[in-house]
Amino acid sequence: MTSHDVIVTLTTDFGTQDGYVAAIKGAMLSVAPEVRFVDVTHEVPPQDVMGAAFVMRQAIGHFPEGTIHLGVVDPGTGGSRRPLAARFHPPGSDREHIFVGPDNGLLSLITDDPPVRTVVLDQPNRWRSTRASETFHGRDIFAPVASHLASGVPLRDVGTPTEEIATLRWALPRADEQGVEGWVVHVDRYGNCITNIPRETVDAHRAGRDVSVYAGSTIIRGMNASYGDVTDTEPVAVFGSSGSLEVGVNRGNASTLLSLNRGTAVRLVFDSQPTRARRLTEIG
Amino acid sequence: MTSHDVIVTLTTDFGTQDGYVAAIKGAMLSVAPEVRFVDVTHEVPPQDVMGAAFVMRQAIGHFPEGTIHLGVVDPGTGGSRRPLAARFHPPGSDREHIFVGPDNGLLSLITDDPPVRTVVLDQPNRWRSTRASETFHGRDIFAPVASHLASGVPLRDVGTPTEEIATLRWALPRADEQGVEGWVVHVDRYGNCITNIPRETVDAHRAGRDVSVYAGSTIIRGMNASYGDVTDTEPVAVFGSSGSLEVGVNRGNASTLLSLNRGTAVRLVFDSQPTRARRLTEIG
Amino acid sequence: MTSHDVIVTLTTDFGTQDGYVAAIKGAMLSVAPEVRFVDVTHEVPPQDVMGAAFVMRQAIGHFPEGTIHLGVVDPGTGGSRRPLAARFHPPGSDREHIFVGPDNGLLSLITDDPPVRTVVLDQPNRWRSTRASETFHGRDIFAPVASHLASGVPLRDVGTPTEEIATLRWALPRADEQGVEGWVVHVDRYGNCITNIPRETVDAHRAGRDVSVYAGSTIIRGMNASYGDVTDTEPVAVFGSSGSLEVGVNRGNASTLLSLNRGTAVRLVFDSQPTRARRLTEIG
Repeated sequence: MTSHDVIVTLTTDFGTQDGYVAAIKGAMLSVAPEVRFVDVTHEVPPQDVMGAAFVMRQAIGHFPEGTIHLGVVDPGTGGSRRPLAARFHPPGSDREHIFVGPDNGLLSLITDDPPVRTVVLDQPNRWRSTRASETFHGRDIFAPVASHLASGVPLRDVGTPTEEIATLRWALPRADEQGVEGWVVHVDRYGNCITNIPRETVDAHRAGRDVSVYAGSTIIRGMNASYGDVTDTEPVAVFGSSGSLEVGVNRGNASTLLSLNRGTAVRLVFDSQPTRARRLTEIG
Repeated sequence: MTSHDVIVTLTTDFGTQDGYVAAIKGAMLSVAPEVRFVDVTHEVPPQDVMGAAFVMRQAIGHFPEGTIHLGVVDPGTGGSRRPLAARFHPPGSDREHIFVGPDNGLLSLITDDPPVRTVVLDQPNRWRSTRASETFHGRDIFAPVASHLASGVPLRDVGTPTEEIATLRWALPRADEQGVEGWVVHVDRYGNCITNIPRETVDAHRAGRDVSVYAGSTIIRGMNASYGDVTDTEPVAVFGSSGSLEVGVNRGNASTLLSLNRGTAVRLVFDSQPTRARRLTEIG
Repeated sequence: MTSHDVIVTLTTDFGTQDGYVAAIKGAMLSVAPEVRFVDVTHEVPPQDVMGAAFVMRQAIGHFPEGTIHLGVVDPGTGGSRRPLAARFHPPGSDREHIFVGPDNGLLSLITDDPPVRTVVLDQPNRWRSTRASETFHGRDIFAPVASHLASGVPLRDVGTPTEEIATLRWALPRADEQGVEGWVVHVDRYGNCITNIPRETVDAHRAGRDVSVYAGSTIIRGMNASYGDVTDTEPVAVFGSSGSLEVGVNRGNASTLLSLNRGTAVRLVFDSQPTRARRLTEIG
């Protein structure tokens, strides 16, 4: 891969009405004019590290090996959190990517393994020179470091190795023979409510039984393969493109129509009999 | 044109707060690292195919020959609509472009001629391998196919030719000697209300006469060359950059101020006498 | 610098839900396929030239020498303002950049020096051919001219030199021995309120004294180095990344919580004694 192939993705809570994102891109281009950008999102709710991680997990694993992911969601750009860069594997990928951002737990949330190598960015000669009191870490530390990495500078030349990084954990759903209980972790633009209940957890306990999905005050009988399997405005439960249970409304906004929000409990309750047995009974 | 020149535009209803758009871009870059993106918009109202078509018609004809336009506005990503790719002419252009997206009528709305060649995307070896139940067509079918096309793979290698595509039609205004009646088809960010009344239709019936424009409960005497021709906050009717009649308010939001929305009727009524004749009469 | 390195930034009030921005980019790519774009913002409030200038000043100085900045914020795209291109220095930079946009005062606000050279765009052979009545200056004049400039065409070949440009001025704060009085000029996405009070003005009058900041009905004792220096939800005054006084709330929205908006007065009042003297007195 030549340097003109290096992609930098950006995930921030900066919004798009100010000049912050462009300042970062300009600072990167001033160091490495060949770098190319893909915006993941700049609409992370302010300081919402888990929200940023959720969106990054939807996207970053699809990028080519060696992609650099800038993740800057941080209260107080002059705060005390260490600036980091790391080589890591996105979830479900065996390709190495690079993360650059503050040590606020985000890195721990966007990989399922420990990072391959993490460094603390403590080499000011790799930063943009600026008055400390006016430092904007995204523009003055993370952007130039990301550009140096994009230009082929190795991790060891931008910082000092560290083994300890801030760690946050995704809460796991509770599961047993009766069912699985989790909650909504993300509401997308359509109002689809994505839960923290992975397909694997359901498969491990379901044992071929039918299932009812309790989401807020709505009960959905059974699960479907896609939103289009139900009629318009009907609630539906599917395993979405993320591999997790989603509660939606076909051609409607489930969050609004069913009063579901981030944090709302979602419970799967398995029938007492496996599907086949019950059906035979019914036929009989 | 070398492959590094290939542009892919994206028009979706995905919004920009989730990771869906970046997942698509990452999937494209993993197949064709040299592809470059231009976002048309991701703010199409959910599932609004005609809204997507309107915005694409404003933009796509200005791109270079060979540009690939991804148009993904679709209820239920696992739905039953066929995935398509086509060579076509954008409206008013004699240059061939490429469309990739679901067979939902969008293609029929963004060209005034039948597509030059259309294929159904039925070659899974050109897709991203994934579990069918977790398929996100934008990311798993359209993105890799678009990248293959960008890399020079011909249409015939990504699908099977088809002659029939879903077809939607722009409603035409009603026009006669007395006037023209259409409606607002788009409200832009400024609140300007763009109608489905093309200049040519008006010219064909006007015969040099003055005109009054009835938009909601507002009557505008005559038409102007530009918004700036009237004083601030005054309503104005112009033929806009789209070539269609627009009703606006100079330095104001016509939609809000005049209570005009998508679907509101707009009528042009011609005077009974040609302008010159009437003026002579008045002078007399 | 080769032509493939040329960056065009875009700052407009077009929003992102319409096709206007993509039409401009397509028109540029049709002239110069190698040009690369960075969006500064398209969310400038409609026709807000000073708002556009504020955001551009946050960003443009960080771009490489020779970057072309398209700034199109203008009422009535068919209005009478002259189209301009200019070589200029962004604030605090000794590198030459290029501006393209209408003569509405924006250019005067994004540089602290007179432009090096300004031309009126009066060479229609450098424009997109179009019917005058349907002219969209961003797409039909500014975009092709910017692309010609990106391709290496000199300024003198796209227009005629002019010495006079529309000029707007940033209002300066009032400062004396007692304090400094300015106001909020921008509220960013976090609700941080950025004032027109530069650090230099405060330093010139403060003489080592403590300071109180009066913002709306809130009084903040002293200034801090960063938002993170105060506890959550506490108001704070800092010199931000722009070098100007900002009033914020740590992990909160100062605009909402403190009822501060663009235009709200902010006053710094210096203590009567230098800090050291007062402290000694207190200790004694």
